[in-house]
Amino acid sequence: MKKLKMGMVGGGQGSFIGDVHRRASRIDGMIDLVCGAFSSNPERSIKSAEALGVATERAYKSFEEMIEKEAELPESDRMDFVSIVTPNHMHFPPAKLALEKGFHVICDKPVTLSLEEAFELQKAVKKSGKIFALTHNYTGYPMVKQARLMVGNGELGAIRKVVVQYLQGWMSTAVEETENKQASWRVDPKKSGIGGALGDIGTHAENLTEYITGKKILELAADLTSFGAGRVLDDDGNILLRLEDNAKGTLSISQIATGEENNLAIRVYGTKGSVAWCQENPNELTAYWLDKPKQIFTPGGNGTYPESTEYTRVPPGHPEGYLEGFATIYRSFAKEVLAVKDGATFSERPDFPTIDDGLRGMQFIYAAVASNDNNAAWVSLTE
Amino acid sequence: MKKLKMGMVGGGQGSFIGDVHRRASRIDGMIDLVCGAFSSNPERSIKSAEALGVATERAYKSFEEMIEKEAELPESDRMDFVSIVTPNHMHFPPAKLALEKGFHVICDKPVTLSLEEAFELQKAVKKSGKIFALTHNYTGYPMVKQARLMVGNGELGAIRKVVVQYLQGWMSTAVEETENKQASWRVDPKKSGIGGALGDIGTHAENLTEYITGKKILELAADLTSFGAGRVLDDDGNILLRLEDNAKGTLSISQIATGEENNLAIRVYGTKGSVAWCQENPNELTAYWLDKPKQIFTPGGNGTYPESTEYTRVPPGHPEGYLEGFATIYRSFAKEVLAVKDGATFSERPDFPTIDDGLRGMQFIYAAVASNDNNAAWVSLTE
Amino acid sequence: MKKLKMGMVGGGQGSFIGDVHRRASRIDGMIDLVCGAFSSNPERSIKSAEALGVATERAYKSFEEMIEKEAELPESDRMDFVSIVTPNHMHFPPAKLALEKGFHVICDKPVTLSLEEAFELQKAVKKSGKIFALTHNYTGYPMVKQARLMVGNGELGAIRKVVVQYLQGWMSTAVEETENKQASWRVDPKKSGIGGALGDIGTHAENLTEYITGKKILELAADLTSFGAGRVLDDDGNILLRLEDNAKGTLSISQIATGEENNLAIRVYGTKGSVAWCQENPNELTAYWLDKPKQIFTPGGNGTYPESTEYTRVPPGHPEGYLEGFATIYRSFAKEVLAVKDGATFSERPDFPTIDDGLRGMQFIYAAVASNDNNAAWVSLTE
Amino acid sequence: MKKLKMGMVGGGQGSFIGDVHRRASRIDGMIDLVCGAFSSNPERSIKSAEALGVATERAYKSFEEMIEKEAELPESDRMDFVSIVTPNHMHFPPAKLALEKGFHVICDKPVTLSLEEAFELQKAVKKSGKIFALTHNYTGYPMVKQARLMVGNGELGAIRKVVVQYLQGWMSTAVEETENKQASWRVDPKKSGIGGALGDIGTHAENLTEYITGKKILELAADLTSFGAGRVLDDDGNILLRLEDNAKGTLSISQIATGEENNLAIRVYGTKGSVAWCQENPNELTAYWLDKPKQIFTPGGNGTYPESTEYTRVPPGHPEGYLEGFATIYRSFAKEVLAVKDGATFSERPDFPTIDDGLRGMQFIYAAVASNDNNAAWVSLTE
Repeated sequence: MKKLKMGMVGGGQGSFIGDVHRRASRIDGMIDLVCGAFSSNPERSIKSAEALGVATERAYKSFEEMIEKEAELPESDRMDFVSIVTPNHMHFPPAKLALEKGFHVICDKPVTLSLEEAFELQKAVKKSGKIFALTHNYTGYPMVKQARLMVGNGELGAIRKVVVQYLQGWMSTAVEETENKQASWRVDPKKSGIGGALGDIGTHAENLTEYITGKKILELAADLTSFGAGRVLDDDGNILLRLEDNAKGTLSISQIATGEENNLAIRVYGTKGSVAWCQENPNELTAYWLDKPKQIFTPGGNGTYPESTEYTRVPPGHPEGYLEGFATIYRSFAKEVLAVKDGATFSERPDFPTIDDGLRGMQFIYAAVASNDNNAAWVSLTE
Repeated sequence: MKKLKMGMVGGGQGSFIGDVHRRASRIDGMIDLVCGAFSSNPERSIKSAEALGVATERAYKSFEEMIEKEAELPESDRMDFVSIVTPNHMHFPPAKLALEKGFHVICDKPVTLSLEEAFELQKAVKKSGKIFALTHNYTGYPMVKQARLMVGNGELGAIRKVVVQYLQGWMSTAVEETENKQASWRVDPKKSGIGGALGDIGTHAENLTEYITGKKILELAADLTSFGAGRVLDDDGNILLRLEDNAKGTLSISQIATGEENNLAIRVYGTKGSVAWCQENPNELTAYWLDKPKQIFTPGGNGTYPESTEYTRVPPGHPEGYLEGFATIYRSFAKEVLAVKDGATFSERPDFPTIDDGLRGMQFIYAAVASNDNNAAWVSLTE
Repeated sequence: MKKLKMGMVGGGQGSFIGDVHRRASRIDGMIDLVCGAFSSNPERSIKSAEALGVATERAYKSFEEMIEKEAELPESDRMDFVSIVTPNHMHFPPAKLALEKGFHVICDKPVTLSLEEAFELQKAVKKSGKIFALTHNYTGYPMVKQARLMVGNGELGAIRKVVVQYLQGWMSTAVEETENKQASWRVDPKKSGIGGALGDIGTHAENLTEYITGKKILELAADLTSFGAGRVLDDDGNILLRLEDNAKGTLSISQIATGEENNLAIRVYGTKGSVAWCQENPNELTAYWLDKPKQIFTPGGNGTYPESTEYTRVPPGHPEGYLEGFATIYRSFAKEVLAVKDGATFSERPDFPTIDDGLRGMQFIYAAVASNDNNAAWVSLTE
Repeated sequence: MKKLKMGMVGGGQGSFIGDVHRRASRIDGMIDLVCGAFSSNPERSIKSAEALGVATERAYKSFEEMIEKEAELPESDRMDFVSIVTPNHMHFPPAKLALEKGFHVICDKPVTLSLEEAFELQKAVKKSGKIFALTHNYTGYPMVKQARLMVGNGELGAIRKVVVQYLQGWMSTAVEETENKQASWRVDPKKSGIGGALGDIGTHAENLTEYITGKKILELAADLTSFGAGRVLDDDGNILLRLEDNAKGTLSISQIATGEENNLAIRVYGTKGSVAWCQENPNELTAYWLDKPKQIFTPGGNGTYPESTEYTRVPPGHPEGYLEGFATIYRSFAKEVLAVKDGATFSERPDFPTIDDGLRGMQFIYAAVASNDNNAAWVSLTE
């Protein structure tokens, strides 16, 4: 098996999500980290490289330098793709440059700082002929795959209602005034964009909803709040949804839901059956039926689709977690990159979130903010 | 201990809620059923009386007859109060007459068919000097009492967010076209009023929210749907809430959430802590904290308030259920009636839902329908 | 419907289990409490009667007086049966006398103080031609009925393994040295018999095992402990089981399992499927299958047997609890008494625990103590 | 950071546990797989190497060849340690040889085929001055660490009772007669040893018990069964435990518990508090207290010890699973190897299971079989 070579933008020492991306990229043994612009501080970038077992001569001072220098290396040595794990405002610049210089890209969400950038990046991806993946990692869980398959195969009948929530409590107090690096950029519109919780977790809820149901959110009515004193971005939101084919729903997000850890949960109700899943215990999918008892599906367990089981790495009853779900995005991306390197044409529907999902996320953020600015009036996602 | 004598309006053979009221009234041994107008069909009323061990001469043909005849009996024999367990359109007439003729009343919810009737009944209660209780039974659970106490005592800090849902699936198909008596009147505006699921279960969710948080819902934005073909009343709704003191929330109801049984669940988030409770496993209250581990409270268990423990009838670990919660409303009502019979003045804040709660429920229904008629615009509950 | 008249032995003010029996007897509206020897203290017996709404002239000084005086009343007035809710040493004397004087009996468990008494009572029941029921209340839960039906109908295949536990923590400290009435007699062999936790909760676990599996425990090996300083009776036990048809199991009991409330839980494994049930959340029965997903059954819910649904009093999703399970024993007993009064012959397999179950319980206690005295050697239950 | 180089014995294509070891070794980025004797079939070994990205010249025909050839490589190139992932009968030979040739060893459990071999290996480890780790992976979960810390710090008081179970159902049918490679060697005493389920899962339950409680099992009484037709080794067992300091317990294992996946669960009861943990939802630890409400701890969550949090790789609410627990054993082993390479002396109490734990496991198996051969009489683990 050939391994792919990864270059990373961001993710220096102390980074939460950079560490997650690296672990996720290792689990399936298909990817080696070979270089990085780990920090805007060159010294820290080198120290990070040392700690990560990356050759220090490939610890670059900036993403520009990394992309330029790596492009000059012989093909057998140079990185195959760039992984972007910086705050939101630093997604677009490296992504665009990498694509232009011929590198595939995998990027954290939300895809860009602004909706405008998202449209521009969409064009850049198409123009580049390169692969772009977005780490909406929660779609990597086997039970999410199972739910999507059940809906797609019509087991639930016509979808009528979605109840989705993503509730955290870690910003209940003014953590941005402490040394919490995660909080400080998230409350800063220059780095985060116009959405606070909306962008950070709302887009996950939006993406998960569309992924499982296979239906687009057509319009929404959003009531957003900044509970934290002095915050200019939302840290809480309650949103009504209208989806394709007359499905309806609620989407509730919060980063001030005291005591909640990472409670992303979704329930999808159809005419024949329903499913419920919660990220904090991701190895169970509950199915409800018109006239049969409730069922509990487990990864690789009895009655699951083979197409969901292929996303498990261990036998039933051996729980998988956040890192494995994340790794699935990396694995699917890596498979596509390898196939394309071997001459295959691009998948029409690749098995990972794409720039189109990224654009949807930005449209969701912008629609919600526009709705909120108009006292929760309905706003279309495509306006 | 003196026992109270109860007369019942409705609740003939085959009635679900009549049977519940009777069982609930028996559990604490304070109430005897002595008479009834169990059915609009006199024969069925008599048969019901026989099955219930009620003297057939006190099985009346109509509530009017019951109230009139009982009023003529010597005080030691006649019923002390009337229990009304009919469909919504038959709440107001017997309630008003009973109050006027000097009987206390306990009545199922929603309190009346229309908002107008609710206002009129409020006046009738005040004028009568009699006790009126409404069976919002879910406030009778010990863990709901505990939650209310925790909020009231400031343990959760300032309340910021409420996520409440009441999801059922029994009307996913056209049950009203079968012989399901429960369904047929619920889809009929003449018997049910302007709300479908709104009145049947939405008012419970609304009442529970206000009961636990101690805050009134100020305004709402409601997106209602009639999924069932041919239904004129809502069978599903998604509602945004704004409460007193800047709390926000979502309230989601459904009777077409396939596979759901009776999933009333509420989460209340404050600045210091949060609580979560679900009716289907009512003997657990989960508390979340800023800096302490999650806790699970149980009725009468470690760390519960004595004021919640007094609502349990068995030791911790011996589950109580729906009938006990319902019985608590009857017990509190009976205690008040007995106290007033003994000469006490009325409680200012009686320990059961009152006509005022009933009026709130009707205002909730009317606001939600008005909002929905205006594409989910915000509507105040007191407009 | 004719109602039955109940006389009670024990259950004076402050009694836990007497109150439970009374509530359970009321829930279905078939039974009236008409007399009692509520306490060995005549004054307290009268006060209890007053509090319970029982005529004080039928508050007797002793069970002997009650049985004698009631027997002299005209049949239309006198009690139909005796309910015995005293500590263990006071089960046999009133049960035997009541049977001899022509009264049916319902009695708390374990059935007697000694194995000898149990054999003697078995003879007395047979001789009397009267009905004797034992309140192994946990067999009254609808999901226990469902489990028994699933086993009985062969759904699980051949039963191979049982894992049953009954864990409480309320005796973790020396509660018997406080004013805890429940504890003081339980640690006293003169009142409790040779078993401590064995008799109090072990017999429930034993009975539940035999009830659900339909198999008798043939022999056991018991390792008992008295953890509480100065206790002469066991407060904890770990027991190996061998059942009919080569099934095996473990049975673990404790009253010093700190923090446990009333954790009676059972898992039964067969060749085709398995079931799991826990008393603290009794409205769920989990079924496991060879090649199908796990299922969750609920009372009256999808896929349950009609024969289990008849034990529910409310629709699915409306939880029932301890009192309803207990009430089911009373109801089944009352139906049998009414049928026999109407001239029916006795049921061969009545729908409630009988003197034979009581004898099994005593054999279980005696076998366990004998095994423990011989360092956990195997002892047959019929030796 | 220097990385360690790993050689693997076993784990060729289709191996379950070899794949697990490799993934676990990758998660923390400290280990590279550089060589292997992946299969007794040389061709398959080479194919496995290719699939794994291992140079084919380092895909050896046998573990002997691997150890010999690698020892001849310059230190900078040769493997640092051997990972043994073969069936039980192939643990001892490569482990002993590797130690003798100067390689550290990490090995799957149970440590050897026989007790005799375990004693011999213990001597070999001591003589070698090399590090030996055993992958009792369930001790790698953060919540297991937390439980051990709570016991060790006296939070639970004196330990009185343990209830541990490890229940699987995958051998409910004759899977060994299918092409299931996992089953066929497990039922063969020549490859598995004298224990079936005992060795495969019983040793995990035994190890977890001793790890969390810090107490040794002194003696046991075991009732073992081979339910599967024709099986000579146990596939089910029920065991009574007596531990140091008068603690007691039950240990129940099964591979024929139909429908169970990987249900390893433990409850530990002390005089002040108790803990409960289940492997299938490993991110929760429930604590019970004498006079406080139940608590739920989560990895890195409120109230956890820093010493348990260091075993989490992601923030609270981001579930970790089986692979991360396994990775923790590899990481702790790798840290020790790196430290020793840097000249540190060996840890007296290394942070991973050692040869001593391996010996305990074999003593457990032998005691259980001896007890079972004597009708479940008590047998000391050190006899």
